[in-house]
Amino acid sequence: MANGHSIAPVGVIGANGYTGQELLRILGRHDGVEVVFATSESASGEETVSAGLRLVAPADARIEEAQLVFLCVPHGQAVAWAERLENTRVRVVDVSADHRPGSGREAGWVYGLPELSREAVRGARRVSNPGCYPTGVILALRPLLDAGVIASAGVVIVDAASGVTGAGRSAKRELLFAEVANDYRAYALGNVHRHLPEMRASLCGLSLVFTPHLLPVPRGILETIYVPLAPGVDAATVQRVWHERYGDEALVSVLEDRVPGLADVVGTDRVAMGVVANSAVAEPLATLVVALDNLGKGAAGQAVQNMNLMLGFAEHRGLRC
Amino acid sequence: MANGHSIAPVGVIGANGYTGQELLRILGRHDGVEVVFATSESASGEETVSAGLRLVAPADARIEEAQLVFLCVPHGQAVAWAERLENTRVRVVDVSADHRPGSGREAGWVYGLPELSREAVRGARRVSNPGCYPTGVILALRPLLDAGVIASAGVVIVDAASGVTGAGRSAKRELLFAEVANDYRAYALGNVHRHLPEMRASLCGLSLVFTPHLLPVPRGILETIYVPLAPGVDAATVQRVWHERYGDEALVSVLEDRVPGLADVVGTDRVAMGVVANSAVAEPLATLVVALDNLGKGAAGQAVQNMNLMLGFAEHRGLRC
Amino acid sequence: MANGHSIAPVGVIGANGYTGQELLRILGRHDGVEVVFATSESASGEETVSAGLRLVAPADARIEEAQLVFLCVPHGQAVAWAERLENTRVRVVDVSADHRPGSGREAGWVYGLPELSREAVRGARRVSNPGCYPTGVILALRPLLDAGVIASAGVVIVDAASGVTGAGRSAKRELLFAEVANDYRAYALGNVHRHLPEMRASLCGLSLVFTPHLLPVPRGILETIYVPLAPGVDAATVQRVWHERYGDEALVSVLEDRVPGLADVVGTDRVAMGVVANSAVAEPLATLVVALDNLGKGAAGQAVQNMNLMLGFAEHRGLRC
Amino acid sequence: MANGHSIAPVGVIGANGYTGQELLRILGRHDGVEVVFATSESASGEETVSAGLRLVAPADARIEEAQLVFLCVPHGQAVAWAERLENTRVRVVDVSADHRPGSGREAGWVYGLPELSREAVRGARRVSNPGCYPTGVILALRPLLDAGVIASAGVVIVDAASGVTGAGRSAKRELLFAEVANDYRAYALGNVHRHLPEMRASLCGLSLVFTPHLLPVPRGILETIYVPLAPGVDAATVQRVWHERYGDEALVSVLEDRVPGLADVVGTDRVAMGVVANSAVAEPLATLVVALDNLGKGAAGQAVQNMNLMLGFAEHRGLRC
Repeated sequence: MANGHSIAPVGVIGANGYTGQELLRILGRHDGVEVVFATSESASGEETVSAGLRLVAPADARIEEAQLVFLCVPHGQAVAWAERLENTRVRVVDVSADHRPGSGREAGWVYGLPELSREAVRGARRVSNPGCYPTGVILALRPLLDAGVIASAGVVIVDAASGVTGAGRSAKRELLFAEVANDYRAYALGNVHRHLPEMRASLCGLSLVFTPHLLPVPRGILETIYVPLAPGVDAATVQRVWHERYGDEALVSVLEDRVPGLADVVGTDRVAMGVVANSAVAEPLATLVVALDNLGKGAAGQAVQNMNLMLGFAEHRGLRC
Repeated sequence: MANGHSIAPVGVIGANGYTGQELLRILGRHDGVEVVFATSESASGEETVSAGLRLVAPADARIEEAQLVFLCVPHGQAVAWAERLENTRVRVVDVSADHRPGSGREAGWVYGLPELSREAVRGARRVSNPGCYPTGVILALRPLLDAGVIASAGVVIVDAASGVTGAGRSAKRELLFAEVANDYRAYALGNVHRHLPEMRASLCGLSLVFTPHLLPVPRGILETIYVPLAPGVDAATVQRVWHERYGDEALVSVLEDRVPGLADVVGTDRVAMGVVANSAVAEPLATLVVALDNLGKGAAGQAVQNMNLMLGFAEHRGLRC
Repeated sequence: MANGHSIAPVGVIGANGYTGQELLRILGRHDGVEVVFATSESASGEETVSAGLRLVAPADARIEEAQLVFLCVPHGQAVAWAERLENTRVRVVDVSADHRPGSGREAGWVYGLPELSREAVRGARRVSNPGCYPTGVILALRPLLDAGVIASAGVVIVDAASGVTGAGRSAKRELLFAEVANDYRAYALGNVHRHLPEMRASLCGLSLVFTPHLLPVPRGILETIYVPLAPGVDAATVQRVWHERYGDEALVSVLEDRVPGLADVVGTDRVAMGVVANSAVAEPLATLVVALDNLGKGAAGQAVQNMNLMLGFAEHRGLRC
Repeated sequence: MANGHSIAPVGVIGANGYTGQELLRILGRHDGVEVVFATSESASGEETVSAGLRLVAPADARIEEAQLVFLCVPHGQAVAWAERLENTRVRVVDVSADHRPGSGREAGWVYGLPELSREAVRGARRVSNPGCYPTGVILALRPLLDAGVIASAGVVIVDAASGVTGAGRSAKRELLFAEVANDYRAYALGNVHRHLPEMRASLCGLSLVFTPHLLPVPRGILETIYVPLAPGVDAATVQRVWHERYGDEALVSVLEDRVPGLADVVGTDRVAMGVVANSAVAEPLATLVVALDNLGKGAAGQAVQNMNLMLGFAEHRGLRC
């Protein structure tokens, strides 16, 4: 197992998407690992963000040379890779949705949200990396659910907005610059987004409505969450519960007296959260605002955090706190 | 009074802000009126968007020559102008917030939301033009409230996002390009936005939570509204109520099978709305999405619609339906 | 032939690209024509920007019902359409590059830059609509060339920047929002852009260097042109020559004391130009700045200007001067 | 003097502008220094980008505790600070324009462009940090001038574009988001930009025309430079000269077979350059494209590079190569 004195070889499958590129950038700054291969179906042969690293075809991945492999392939394509890796000694972080809670394929996989399941990740050989939207929603709501802060019969509404890299790097007309610039619109309406089963699996008992919107920015997620409060609690309770849970966490910022915007987190591997009470409303309702970089804590940053735990490095090594 | 055969002289006070400039553009295309003066404190002497029209200092406004004057001054400065106009025969459309419902100064003013109060506007001498956010919220919710579609004990949550022109044209650091680009953040949190009294005045009995966000786009408002439904109604009911109320309205588009985005309305004087039912939630909840151009139906377009009614023109003359 | 009293039927082939959509918007405001068909290979059956107009498959275009057809298909695909139209009485405006000067297929086609060849367009049955970049370059330089203002041995450098709609609406990775936003880069370097033969055909004798760049904006072209001046002339000469040539032109604005930016022209069908002398340089050199909307005067607007001339309408009817 | 084993205390005057904030970010990652004070006139008392660092009023700067002070004040305000520091042992990097070549106040100051004057910087107590535009222009052209590659009688044209942070963080109407978004325009036309004397001082003998444009992006500079070539040389010569001069430089990337765009350099402290020959032009002309982050190598990054040389650190410590 890796330690401070040796360099751990790692590989990246699907390294030319936005998440794969961000992952290579983070790994390039991490002095405990070396990327021994990075694959791309469409761009093999091209030099990539890490000077000196050339993308190879998937068939040329030297999997056995790696201690750990990241799967950054499109959803649906990680299953086959996971099977191929099953009988090797290589550890896996699956950044796709294929083995997340609610996928029906999560058996044998640890859900890698370290602030909530650090010890399970530490010993894991196979980790499923959380989705970008669920990372913010679960980190904000799980402690409140545990502390009984949310009104039991209420509905929690999550109004979310994401930058365009969240939709991937495939060439689609609706993602063209001239379509997205100056626009803002909701999508996956009707409470049917594919991240909902993942959120519900970690927030059982909660009635959630989740409405995502597409923002004309490259990266960043903002989630404005409306929470009906249980009797006797208020926004200060939320603040205190978060502080108790996350006071020592390097990658979770609990703000005081304000809420975060995208600019507070884009380019970092942190999630930030704040809470405000609403005046003049029929029932006690708190508004939570959660912000993270969909490519940082929402994908590649969290994948490296998981890798650090799995390989025995300091948890936040190489990350932007 | 103006009719199809004569040209009505009108004036604009505060013509160099974003609303004033948009108003001049619309009036420049309106063949029933002539702008006889347009004032600006900071830019008097400069030629403005309408070729041949030069901005003058407020003191040089030839008020008596106009049949109708638009007040586009910053909030707080319209009161003095209204007093000055009180004993003249000049009609007034106040585009500022100074005489809106909830301001405490609304006595003697008609609230100019023509789709809900057309006849009152038609005979009015003094019209208070609605705010941009309230225009969308009230047009979407008022018919539902009248029809008993909204659960009586429920809270309606309005999660709104606006382009930057909504914040005015004064030089403020937080509105600089390098601050706003790539960012997205909530403001006026805690249910304290100054448009709330205006909304509540038109939606009495409703418990509202309103959270605005600043979008990195120049113009456009999107309002995602979460409505708890009364027993026995569903999203189709919402759709039917809207159709009955707005089926003949040129400036209200009720969409079917989809919801609007900013790109559907920016550059027009219309408001567009759509509705979707949410699955898998503890209580029946519909999501409404309302979109309008904050400078069009949200300000200058609606001001011209009011002017058309006040001066006897066809209601939508010169407007972009 | 059309006149003020009858409505001319027209058709659009390739109506779902950015130029086609802009063309439908302009034609929708033009009260002398009716769009009797608009085709799209990929989006047939969809309703388009003009309410009530449904896109049809190319095979369903009722060509003989039109007095004039616009070809807005991708470059290379207009040749077959032109052949098909050859033995009909239907007039054609080819908005593609297929029959422009330098294409080798320009015989029998009038180059439709009305400010320089109005009379030829008036009688034409087949008009080739200029490219977006050449429209600005030729309108700025042709009068200077005629007046002997440009140093005979000099090289004219055109440094140009275009919004993303200039690259078309096909789904390509390099045009995705997340690739273009926050970036700015040159392309077609080495003086090899496909618009150069077209420019040279109208500016014979001139040695041109043309370098385009991709701007992170949806629309607009800015061309900064460096012109070595002949002995005895200066920037004021340029200004005077332009004024003499374009003083009466509704769609060409010659600015005084300033140069245009994109915001002066986007959303219009005009081109604007200004000139400045450079101090402290070894030889007399003027900087011209030319701005136009690539979809307006650079494509659809100019196509309608040509149509107006071909069908006997007032030249600027329906256009945004 | 600082070395690898001790921490050097440094201070920042004017830490709340875009350059000051970027400088604090870089210094926060530099493990050889500690920021002992950071001042701001307008924002004293506020916590800044470096967690735990609070901005103080200029009067509270504990100057004597610092080994080196950065002056990031607006142009014109550094003179007084420099005088105050004159008789202390504190080293100074002036990031403002006040002591640059051509300012008339450059006596006693070393011009800190390390790739061209490394040894002078190493021993210096007072360094004037280059402007953002000159950094790119001089690094690209100085080696070509030395090698005789540029035609002696020719004019070199620099067509440049900069992101909005280059204009500073003062609240000005023309820098508001709604003014800049979707626009692109030239400024300082007529070869009168205040950076020209600085460029000419390092490129004596060259006849330069410099035209900057404002890009709707937060950061980044692209300079497209048109260079008339001396007899017998071509683009390959340019490439070879650059390679010889910069082959070992960590912060200068000479690209092959392509030219850089903003996305290649934004967020780094590097400058990148490429060259292309132009075909079909009357005289041999090369197009150079130079890209850098105006806040990185164009300001704060280069300031830290100078600090590293002045304090005896490895030159690129803490920088993003």
